[in-house]
Amino acid sequence: MAGTTPDISLEACSYSRVLEIVSNKWTALVLYALEGGTIRYGEIRRRIEGISQKMLTQTLKQLERDGLVRRKVVPSVPPIVEYSLTPLGETLIPCMLMLKSWASTHYGSVMAAREEFDRGESIKT
Amino acid sequence: MAGTTPDISLEACSYSRVLEIVSNKWTALVLYALEGGTIRYGEIRRRIEGISQKMLTQTLKQLERDGLVRRKVVPSVPPIVEYSLTPLGETLIPCMLMLKSWASTHYGSVMAAREEFDRGESIKT
Repeated sequence: MAGTTPDISLEACSYSRVLEIVSNKWTALVLYALEGGTIRYGEIRRRIEGISQKMLTQTLKQLERDGLVRRKVVPSVPPIVEYSLTPLGETLIPCMLMLKSWASTHYGSVMAAREEFDRGESIKT
Repeated sequence: MAGTTPDISLEACSYSRVLEIVSNKWTALVLYALEGGTIRYGEIRRRIEGISQKMLTQTLKQLERDGLVRRKVVPSVPPIVEYSLTPLGETLIPCMLMLKSWASTHYGSVMAAREEFDRGESIKT
């Protein structure tokens, strides 16, 4: 197999920068919340239990900067702020759903493996 | 759409713990290196440009603890240490390849969006 994957490091930079996007728990939860379509700020906050206003605002701004989320202010009194996924943001959803599905299917196995490994390590010492 | 995704926080814990696994650049590169089958320690190190011996050993141990990688010592002189994906590790590969593909396809768009956003912010101030 030697030489069949000589370029794995070349993509490491862009890969790790994408992981910066998806590896934040709140980022993932906000993307899921937006999956169903345009929603208001307050509705996102209600859907994501435990997120603070500061963290939600910061997460949305970061996703807007990455071109994944669109922010729209409807000029009413009081103004309504709506968020939706951009077409680029939509393309990330299948990856995140696949990870989410892997997590819910195999998380128990990973935890069991860790316990077994730690038992083995403690016997050795 | 209100009420259709009331449980997004319930899975947040397992999701973020899976992200701990995949969000490390070296972890991802080691999993890719093992994708082709059983390989020796030295061969993994040659394939991943820039990884230190300490980091590779630590990454492999963590993946072994998570039940994703199997370590086998062949009793020869000197002993040969081989690594391979476990069946659980194999199940994670499609997710990682999908993320890698997303990264290489859309990374440029994300960077362009960031530049545009930052230009807009600097005009405002």
